[in-house]
Amino acid sequence: MKKVLTKLLISALSATSLTLLVGCTGDKTVNSAEQNTTDKPNIVLIMTDDQGHGDLGYHNNPIIQTPNLDKLAQQSVRLTNFHVDPTCSPTRAALLTGKHSLKAGVWHTILGRYMLGPEHVTMAEQLQQNGYTTGIFGKWHLGDNYPYRPQDQGFDEVFIHGGGGVGQTPDYWGNTQFDDTYYRNGKEEKTQGYATTVWFDAAIEFIEQNKGKPTFTFIPLNAPHGPYRAPEEYITPYLEKGLNRSMASFYGMITHIDDQVARVQNHLKQSGELDNTIFIFMTDNGSSYRPTKNDLSLTKGHEHLGEKYPNWIPNSGMRGYKVSVFEGGHRVPFFLSYPNGKLAAKDVTTLSAHYDVLPTLLELAGLPASEQDIDGTSLVKAMRQGTDESLKDRAVVVTNQRVYHPDPTRPTAVAKGDWRYIEEYSKQFLFNLADDPGQQNNVLEQHPLVAVELQNIKHQWWSDMKKAGFKDRYIGVGYEQENPVRLNAMDWMEVPEGQAVPWFIGHQAPADEWDHVHWLTKEDQYQALPWYIKAKQAGTYRIKPYYHDIPAGTPIQKKYCVIDANGKIYVERVWGRASHCVVDVQLQAGEQKISAWYTDNKKQLTKDKAAFYLYIELLSE
Amino acid sequence: MKKVLTKLLISALSATSLTLLVGCTGDKTVNSAEQNTTDKPNIVLIMTDDQGHGDLGYHNNPIIQTPNLDKLAQQSVRLTNFHVDPTCSPTRAALLTGKHSLKAGVWHTILGRYMLGPEHVTMAEQLQQNGYTTGIFGKWHLGDNYPYRPQDQGFDEVFIHGGGGVGQTPDYWGNTQFDDTYYRNGKEEKTQGYATTVWFDAAIEFIEQNKGKPTFTFIPLNAPHGPYRAPEEYITPYLEKGLNRSMASFYGMITHIDDQVARVQNHLKQSGELDNTIFIFMTDNGSSYRPTKNDLSLTKGHEHLGEKYPNWIPNSGMRGYKVSVFEGGHRVPFFLSYPNGKLAAKDVTTLSAHYDVLPTLLELAGLPASEQDIDGTSLVKAMRQGTDESLKDRAVVVTNQRVYHPDPTRPTAVAKGDWRYIEEYSKQFLFNLADDPGQQNNVLEQHPLVAVELQNIKHQWWSDMKKAGFKDRYIGVGYEQENPVRLNAMDWMEVPEGQAVPWFIGHQAPADEWDHVHWLTKEDQYQALPWYIKAKQAGTYRIKPYYHDIPAGTPIQKKYCVIDANGKIYVERVWGRASHCVVDVQLQAGEQKISAWYTDNKKQLTKDKAAFYLYIELLSE
Repeated sequence: MKKVLTKLLISALSATSLTLLVGCTGDKTVNSAEQNTTDKPNIVLIMTDDQGHGDLGYHNNPIIQTPNLDKLAQQSVRLTNFHVDPTCSPTRAALLTGKHSLKAGVWHTILGRYMLGPEHVTMAEQLQQNGYTTGIFGKWHLGDNYPYRPQDQGFDEVFIHGGGGVGQTPDYWGNTQFDDTYYRNGKEEKTQGYATTVWFDAAIEFIEQNKGKPTFTFIPLNAPHGPYRAPEEYITPYLEKGLNRSMASFYGMITHIDDQVARVQNHLKQSGELDNTIFIFMTDNGSSYRPTKNDLSLTKGHEHLGEKYPNWIPNSGMRGYKVSVFEGGHRVPFFLSYPNGKLAAKDVTTLSAHYDVLPTLLELAGLPASEQDIDGTSLVKAMRQGTDESLKDRAVVVTNQRVYHPDPTRPTAVAKGDWRYIEEYSKQFLFNLADDPGQQNNVLEQHPLVAVELQNIKHQWWSDMKKAGFKDRYIGVGYEQENPVRLNAMDWMEVPEGQAVPWFIGHQAPADEWDHVHWLTKEDQYQALPWYIKAKQAGTYRIKPYYHDIPAGTPIQKKYCVIDANGKIYVERVWGRASHCVVDVQLQAGEQKISAWYTDNKKQLTKDKAAFYLYIELLSE
Repeated sequence: MKKVLTKLLISALSATSLTLLVGCTGDKTVNSAEQNTTDKPNIVLIMTDDQGHGDLGYHNNPIIQTPNLDKLAQQSVRLTNFHVDPTCSPTRAALLTGKHSLKAGVWHTILGRYMLGPEHVTMAEQLQQNGYTTGIFGKWHLGDNYPYRPQDQGFDEVFIHGGGGVGQTPDYWGNTQFDDTYYRNGKEEKTQGYATTVWFDAAIEFIEQNKGKPTFTFIPLNAPHGPYRAPEEYITPYLEKGLNRSMASFYGMITHIDDQVARVQNHLKQSGELDNTIFIFMTDNGSSYRPTKNDLSLTKGHEHLGEKYPNWIPNSGMRGYKVSVFEGGHRVPFFLSYPNGKLAAKDVTTLSAHYDVLPTLLELAGLPASEQDIDGTSLVKAMRQGTDESLKDRAVVVTNQRVYHPDPTRPTAVAKGDWRYIEEYSKQFLFNLADDPGQQNNVLEQHPLVAVELQNIKHQWWSDMKKAGFKDRYIGVGYEQENPVRLNAMDWMEVPEGQAVPWFIGHQAPADEWDHVHWLTKEDQYQALPWYIKAKQAGTYRIKPYYHDIPAGTPIQKKYCVIDANGKIYVERVWGRASHCVVDVQLQAGEQKISAWYTDNKKQLTKDKAAFYLYIELLSE
């Protein structure tokens, strides 16, 4: 495999690269931590989901309670001009590869466009190569099947939910963030209690079990992604402040995270490892919670929240939320603390991005730089000195490509200095954040030359990105790494314009407002579409199409199931009230399509009902 | 508690009882094993479900393959006239208490009439009192909630499915005998593979972990109870012999058990413990599989099975199957091997029953006899000498009481010597098995005095049984032993004449013929009925009524849920497509009724849909 070769190369180059790096990072103001420390630092990287810049006490939000994160911020290097993609998977891909998300081949959260190809060498793989034990606890959302899973991408210990959030179609059927079943190294494991606590429990156990070895502990939480659910005792205080249930739950999830961050810090402190730990807190995109007029009305007393908290500036005063290319969609918190690294707490205003984290971590840990064609730059100099002249003229491009085929006319922002040039559908904007942080005044006509310069950056960027090729991703079947394989309808391909993908099952706890995206009871709206698979070898594959997933036990209530395996049709009788049928098919080796549905019409094989889950197993000879 | 006092009494009496017993069991033909053995013998008790006398190679069935059980039979004391109840739970209650099932308060398999009251001291408790570590692996079916669970009845290690079979309403939602979730000491545990293998894996692990200590390993299997499912490689050989799929699967389940029995024997042999183990194989009632004409036709070649196997006598030539009070319903295999016990392999024709097993085991193990009013008698003398004169005139009464209130007019058989007196609805029969083993010739008119003698035995038996009182059983709520408690619709009470109880959900594997007893998709046929509960204390209880169980995630699709807590009505809104609602109710302490349903009619609270599962949790102060 090409990747293995790359890994060997990295390994072979380590010695020389290390020498070079140590030479480069010499610094007059502080002692070089790398030279003084015999042990490699541990790395704990916590990334929350859908928590915006303004959803934090430290960022002047007077309502939310985040005392532990506020304290962490005070002790950290704070990147105050730190950008990510405006949605989940692209941010994750860029963070882990050091590349722009489009170059990493990840531009959407569904349709297979969120699967990170195995040809990319991840942060976990690079750390693993350098003696780190690596673990992920929480949300992956870069591919649920081989060869896209965390265990295929450099993680030694994997404990995650499926898909992009708890309760989504790829997740274990019935998960609601409480007492769920998750996936431990590919196997189902029943848990007790609330999701966020479960992830932190597992992470702390991982740290404890690997004490004495350098560890990379990646904690990408599902929280506070919707549906907004938290232990009731975290919601109640916000209800008592007059917030509606939705906002109270969203804030409750974040306050719960805050307590858990303190737990892992205390564990590191007690075991004497905190000083030698690079501890990072960041979030993955702008806030998903948009305060509305209702949120501003206290349920008791009819007082406006805005009146009660006159200093509160929702969303840190930024325009746009999650998915937006306006500032509120992609500027997020980033705090890094590393006591042994002698990094004084400070604000670093340098324009920076998620893809800078990989080269920064490698330099901080004294490891060889990435051998890949990355877009990120180490921020160590800026973190030490507060600024880095060499980054003064850099630009960062943020785009929203929630489409099947990437498209340069999709909403895109180019950031350079204080300027923000934005194209959103047919509109163009230029803002200067220095005097217009809320992006209210379009000054494009006043500064046409600036606009043209930033347009040129965008064109250059697009032609770079195009080289990546924007590949379709095929899920491996018949490989020893995962056999059988479970396919799910979130990964349907060739989705026609206007048809939604059934990505959120939505097993609902009471008082849950996520009804509108729920596909359970709306199954008839979905036409069966193909999955893209890559068969390891020609052979007999046993296929079990399920209407709902196994734990549901839902009877199909149709007479026949139909498999279209790359154009060859197989029909089997559905027995009794069975929840699935069993079809043995012959697959050729290589990339191909497969789809499955149920019908009462044996002649025309009409697509009466879709099979939302498909299990495929290569039978042994 | 009375039970604890009883336990202390047993304990205090141990020393003297032991002396008495050793004195009693002196035997001229063999050395007393109890005196020669310093260690208490291990006990392994395997009981299969619905396997009849004729479903065994050793019993002249030329089709079924049970080589390991056949070998065990050859090496064992064989009770050839051994009787059990004609259904599951009553047999289990009698086996574990040494009492007639009616006296043990267990006479049905549903309606709460299968729950074994905590006032009965079980075999497990008596062994536990005498230093044994006790484990159960498989099917309990004597109560799924406190205080009726195995862990409340003397078992240290508990690994079981719910209800009377895998996939029944009390079992974990979605179980199909493959890759199921079972209950380990009350907690859900996901498993891989086929149920029977899982139980034996767990049993072997238990034996291994407790090596060196005396252990009681109870393996009451769910197999071969329907639905008939086994690993395909066990079914195929029977299909190839021409059996229909149903019979092939039933036989496949038994052959799979046969292999597992060898596994546990080999484990004991390898660890050097087999000689000191009392190893029992028995079944719990007559066969559930009745060969039909179709079974007798080979699918290939149209040859009759009867022609191919001319010596085959289906059902060992007996009349009646499971549930019948004719011989085929209750005469079953019983093999006991105990090398250190110097029990020569032999047939013991003495009339014997399940309730004899407890006193027999206690005597074989050199333990004090049961202090309870039991119906069983130790068979050790008969086992050693081949006969026991003192048992020559005993009678055994077998009854089928699959009704809400026990009734003397229900089908009942009285066995004494070769005579069988049977009342079945308005008919009376007398058979002499010596010349009519198939119970074809009713000789009641020829032997009226024999009939009267056996009728008198029946009347005496009924008046004894009546003293037990036939109690309603109440499920504990709010006890620390189990909080929250999950109630399920199999335990509905006050079921009107003619309404079925939804006891079998029926998550179906393909090619499953159990459609007729399936309640999934037939929910509308069931009216919500009350559960009987006993609240530990007055207080606030949080109730969550589910339409389907938690793993299903099925939306309720009604507007309100309604709880009737002992006559007090609570109504809550159902949110969105929620799968349950949450209702906090005030319960008084003690015995009471509770029921739950869903409605769209807030005024009349019509019972539109039943809640089939109810979670009740006592909230802490």
